[in-house]
Amino acid sequence: TGWTLRAPHAPDPHSRARDWLEATVPGTVHGDLLRHALIPDPFDGLNDTQVQWVGQTAWTYRTTFTVTPEQLQSPHLDLCLDGLDTLCTVRLNGAAVLRSDNMFVPHRLDVRAHLHAGENTLTLHFEPVLPHGRALEARHGTRAVWNGDPSRVYLRKAQYHYGWDWGPVILTAGPWKDVTLHAYHARLDDLHAPLTVGPDGTWLDLNATLAGTTRPGDLLRVTLHGPDGHEVARTTLDAHSEPLQARLHVPDPQLWWPRGYGPQPLYTLHVTLDRGGVTLDTLTRRLGARTVELRQDPVADEPGTSFTFVVNGVPIFAGGANWIPEDLLLDRVTPEQYRHRLQQAADANMVMIRVWGGGIYEHDAFYDTCDELGLLVWQDFLFACGMYPAHPDFLASVQAEAQAAVRRLRHHASLALWCGNNEDYQIAESVGASGPGGDPARFDALTIYERLLPDVVRTLNPDVPYWPGSPSGGAASHDQTVGDRHTWEIWHGVMAPHRDYGHYEGRFVSEFGLQAPPSLHVIERFTRPEDRHAGSRVMEHHNRAADPQGRPDGARRLAAYLSDTFDPPRDFAEYVYATRAVQADAMTSAYRAFRGRWGHAGARAVSGALVWQLNDCWPVTSWSVIDSGGLPKPAYHAIQRELAPLAVQARRDDERLSAWIASSMGEDQPAQVHLDVLTLSGERLLTHAWSVTAAANAVTPLDLAGPHL
Amino acid sequence: TGWTLRAPHAPDPHSRARDWLEATVPGTVHGDLLRHALIPDPFDGLNDTQVQWVGQTAWTYRTTFTVTPEQLQSPHLDLCLDGLDTLCTVRLNGAAVLRSDNMFVPHRLDVRAHLHAGENTLTLHFEPVLPHGRALEARHGTRAVWNGDPSRVYLRKAQYHYGWDWGPVILTAGPWKDVTLHAYHARLDDLHAPLTVGPDGTWLDLNATLAGTTRPGDLLRVTLHGPDGHEVARTTLDAHSEPLQARLHVPDPQLWWPRGYGPQPLYTLHVTLDRGGVTLDTLTRRLGARTVELRQDPVADEPGTSFTFVVNGVPIFAGGANWIPEDLLLDRVTPEQYRHRLQQAADANMVMIRVWGGGIYEHDAFYDTCDELGLLVWQDFLFACGMYPAHPDFLASVQAEAQAAVRRLRHHASLALWCGNNEDYQIAESVGASGPGGDPARFDALTIYERLLPDVVRTLNPDVPYWPGSPSGGAASHDQTVGDRHTWEIWHGVMAPHRDYGHYEGRFVSEFGLQAPPSLHVIERFTRPEDRHAGSRVMEHHNRAADPQGRPDGARRLAAYLSDTFDPPRDFAEYVYATRAVQADAMTSAYRAFRGRWGHAGARAVSGALVWQLNDCWPVTSWSVIDSGGLPKPAYHAIQRELAPLAVQARRDDERLSAWIASSMGEDQPAQVHLDVLTLSGERLLTHAWSVTAAANAVTPLDLAGPHL
Repeated sequence: TGWTLRAPHAPDPHSRARDWLEATVPGTVHGDLLRHALIPDPFDGLNDTQVQWVGQTAWTYRTTFTVTPEQLQSPHLDLCLDGLDTLCTVRLNGAAVLRSDNMFVPHRLDVRAHLHAGENTLTLHFEPVLPHGRALEARHGTRAVWNGDPSRVYLRKAQYHYGWDWGPVILTAGPWKDVTLHAYHARLDDLHAPLTVGPDGTWLDLNATLAGTTRPGDLLRVTLHGPDGHEVARTTLDAHSEPLQARLHVPDPQLWWPRGYGPQPLYTLHVTLDRGGVTLDTLTRRLGARTVELRQDPVADEPGTSFTFVVNGVPIFAGGANWIPEDLLLDRVTPEQYRHRLQQAADANMVMIRVWGGGIYEHDAFYDTCDELGLLVWQDFLFACGMYPAHPDFLASVQAEAQAAVRRLRHHASLALWCGNNEDYQIAESVGASGPGGDPARFDALTIYERLLPDVVRTLNPDVPYWPGSPSGGAASHDQTVGDRHTWEIWHGVMAPHRDYGHYEGRFVSEFGLQAPPSLHVIERFTRPEDRHAGSRVMEHHNRAADPQGRPDGARRLAAYLSDTFDPPRDFAEYVYATRAVQADAMTSAYRAFRGRWGHAGARAVSGALVWQLNDCWPVTSWSVIDSGGLPKPAYHAIQRELAPLAVQARRDDERLSAWIASSMGEDQPAQVHLDVLTLSGERLLTHAWSVTAAANAVTPLDLAGPHL
Repeated sequence: TGWTLRAPHAPDPHSRARDWLEATVPGTVHGDLLRHALIPDPFDGLNDTQVQWVGQTAWTYRTTFTVTPEQLQSPHLDLCLDGLDTLCTVRLNGAAVLRSDNMFVPHRLDVRAHLHAGENTLTLHFEPVLPHGRALEARHGTRAVWNGDPSRVYLRKAQYHYGWDWGPVILTAGPWKDVTLHAYHARLDDLHAPLTVGPDGTWLDLNATLAGTTRPGDLLRVTLHGPDGHEVARTTLDAHSEPLQARLHVPDPQLWWPRGYGPQPLYTLHVTLDRGGVTLDTLTRRLGARTVELRQDPVADEPGTSFTFVVNGVPIFAGGANWIPEDLLLDRVTPEQYRHRLQQAADANMVMIRVWGGGIYEHDAFYDTCDELGLLVWQDFLFACGMYPAHPDFLASVQAEAQAAVRRLRHHASLALWCGNNEDYQIAESVGASGPGGDPARFDALTIYERLLPDVVRTLNPDVPYWPGSPSGGAASHDQTVGDRHTWEIWHGVMAPHRDYGHYEGRFVSEFGLQAPPSLHVIERFTRPEDRHAGSRVMEHHNRAADPQGRPDGARRLAAYLSDTFDPPRDFAEYVYATRAVQADAMTSAYRAFRGRWGHAGARAVSGALVWQLNDCWPVTSWSVIDSGGLPKPAYHAIQRELAPLAVQARRDDERLSAWIASSMGEDQPAQVHLDVLTLSGERLLTHAWSVTAAANAVTPLDLAGPHL
């Protein structure tokens, strides 16, 4: 508390920012300037272009705080900085105690030597990232990127802050996570406590590390409560001895399941460090009992291998979505917002969320909610669409970041995959450093994706699988038979028709999508009435898609897909309606095509479909299916329908019609199916009826001989 | 006369065609069936799909004619078949006298032995081309093509009859040119009589070949009349001696010029074969005195070489257009229609017309009109967008065709270039048979474009330049520094913005364009009211553009360019208006960018710009600037403006504004230029005034220092 903020060298029109302003921690400079009305809302109109000076300016946060003599007598006194965005020099009473350059690495500093009783002053000095990144570029070389300034690959800052094809450039700065002073004798430094499900039963495998100074007689009390709140296991360890390990049997274990496949029972673990009846530290975690595997098995009568998540031995069709950060000002996202957005995903019958590598390791609330809702989490490490460097400093920083992230998130039942990056194998392929004929010697970051990160996961979180990159596997990134795939032949690439997703499947389609505008409700919030037409500068600006030359191309791609389907819309409301209808039709085609290939045991041709993208970080025409106002687009409902536990689906390929039932249910279901095929003018072309059994967790074809249309 | 026509094996719904029907010669089966109302108008609605049976059926033409005893006493009696489309067996009184398989080769047969006094019967039996072409494909291999059935490369039939991206498949058949019986003693078989302009004056260089039987005392009387009708030279040769050559001096010669560069005086040559006061044969030709060169000179301070047509020593900026056949039913095009269309080109300040290689060697009326109007003709040989074969039969046929075409057309003053093909080097490049890394051993037709055709031109028409293909020259077909270039990065390819023609110049831009619908007047003729919306099946069908998978893509490309420029149009009329406005804006950009680089002597960076395409062959949304109803699109007027003899032009590249005067005038012109740059809301950004001299036949830059916008 008591934080202030200023930019001594703020440019002239913003001289008010040279004076100390009240500041909020955790927070960002942009957030405070907004609160002080020193910048306009960057999400309104073209305002984001007017606030670029903020990210290009150096900012100093300052607070003074009182340290008591008692605190100074504590054997340990740490300054904890959970997240600094990004280039930050930390000074305590004038002495530099930290220089941080990775927003994803939390710091804990022993600062007692710098403190004195009474008033102390802490300053956080944030430098702008672009000059620093460009200096690193000058030293190490300019690197290929898709989206954003290429210097971004040198800085461990959320990559989407540099601008993406769905978001503006907002280079935030500030202590985006907690800053605290921690006086203690001893504390729980690390805890790994998975519920291990095995043939010999379910066990809590506890492994704790303490920090500080323990004494003989210090105890570590461990209790595990079942989902119903009753204690199911307990033990007490001598905290003064090492290692601090225990294996507790969990009787009558209740398995945690992805939603739709079973319930989400969560156990509660309490660990307390006790000194003669006084609690020195305590830690509570919610745990789920489950196993998760990524299986690549043969696919009957087809080349390649499946890409199937298997939970508790049951293969899961991973229908779901890609997640981007909910805001550009990360401090504004509340736990309630996380919960609401993820509940929407759950309501759409999704079972997997991919946390995309251009964003952040999300807040605890995100994973807590996924645990509760039964949403599997595919977690990318934070590399996206770039040729990342691998010089020693960088690797060290990545290592620290990865270890911190894995330590923080590994206890979540929802965590199903760690993935090395987003599309870095693809961009490497595009520059001849990967794929057929590529020269891996030019792909520096291979050592990150294929050595450093898998080592971290293997060491710290061995019960969760690792995958080197999304997409990867197979001969090249477009391989349809091995690994995961990003299907962008529709929208990008050859701009294939939006109903042709079936031609562009992969064993697991981890990205695909088509743009649509947000709701008129949201549009009305960032436009003036005169902006409310398809070609207005504001509407164009709030669509960040661009061609390789940087020219906006979202509107023209929308226009192309629109013209495939509808006549030109007569007014703006109809334009918004029609483009959203096309997106919905595309998503119907996609989820239907992909889920229709879920097959059955031994023949899992397609095992997942994650739409790009679930959500937005500002009001924008994007591939999202829920807009920044939280309103689902029509495509959301299309997905919900196609991912229903029991879905009757049909598909037309030229003259051939096929139909089937896709089921994610645990048991066979008797079904009566009636099919009518009508022309637009109502003429009945075909009628069929079946009395079938919809096989459990499989696709049951509906017999339809020959071409029909 | 007295021709009839039938298809003994016409399919069932068309059994009326099994009976003899009155037929028109010259003509086509389609034309006669239309006249008899046995097929619907193929240009209306989707009707072209309903008439495909016509081209897939064998047709027999028959006539009976009376031969008099006097005719039979004539020493020579020839059957002349000027053009047979295409696979034709000619029978006279039941005896096969010819099998023809090249619609561009005229035939003259000595048939006296087959004739008798009284009634004689001539039949022309036309086989459908597709089965024959496919048999040749089976023997010689399937070949890469863009547009149309790939078997077309094996058949010397107008290639656009197989369907193109601006025309439907209409496989006409029939004697499309005259069929006559010619009784004679002796006749003028060939005449080459150029007016040679040289340092020693202007000369008529006459070289005649006779056929038949001459006698001692036969005379060849030669007279040359000047443009004003007065005789300027005459001679009489002994027709019984060989060679028949003469060199006549032309006093006070009047040079023929491309329009805008001078007048088009035409001399008239009469050659008469005289036997004792009786005229045995006579021939009249209109000649122009001019030299034409294609110069490839250094371009000051730039790589590569120019591509400049030089007439009478004066370099010409060849603003103009590409020409396709005016109809799919070639017999319907009247001399008046040729004249009207070419007059439109002339009125648009065009000076060059390229007769595109997928069409025909045009009718005499075309070239006569070009001579009169001063339109230079770039004449392709008839190969387009295909990997043509080169087996001996094929080469022999091509040789005969090329010789006939050159002999017929070489006397035209307007003829400025013979060109080997359209885009065959490009398609060869696309299949790895040409260009960087290409294997020329796989490019069979190279022998046609680089040996056979240039040999024919060098031998028969040495005063007109030859160019191997359009485009060709330089390292690859996209080379911007050498040779001619087809600029399709705009519309096709990367779909670059329609104002970016300046980035895609070539030394001579022989193709570029952007689609627009025909006028509403034309649309109303091929649609019903319910078809009059952008996405109707009929409107889609009357746009033949398609992607490499054969999916229609014209409407979506139009939609993309439309969305770059305008909001969605509110109704169909606005859609038609707006898409045509975009085309006009694109053509303004193109002609301005290209003509603005005409430079000056020694620095001719761009020497020509031919829009794809001037005209249409049916009612269609195409790249044409004049629709099939003869109505100019707005783009026509844009071209007219940018090609004005004295044009003030300006161009914006990001922040840089440039302005200049482009002149095709023979003398320097004093000029007062005033420039205002206004925003859309009327705010004046810039104002400038100059008093300058617009240099003759050059570009005069207007000084505007620094970035402006």
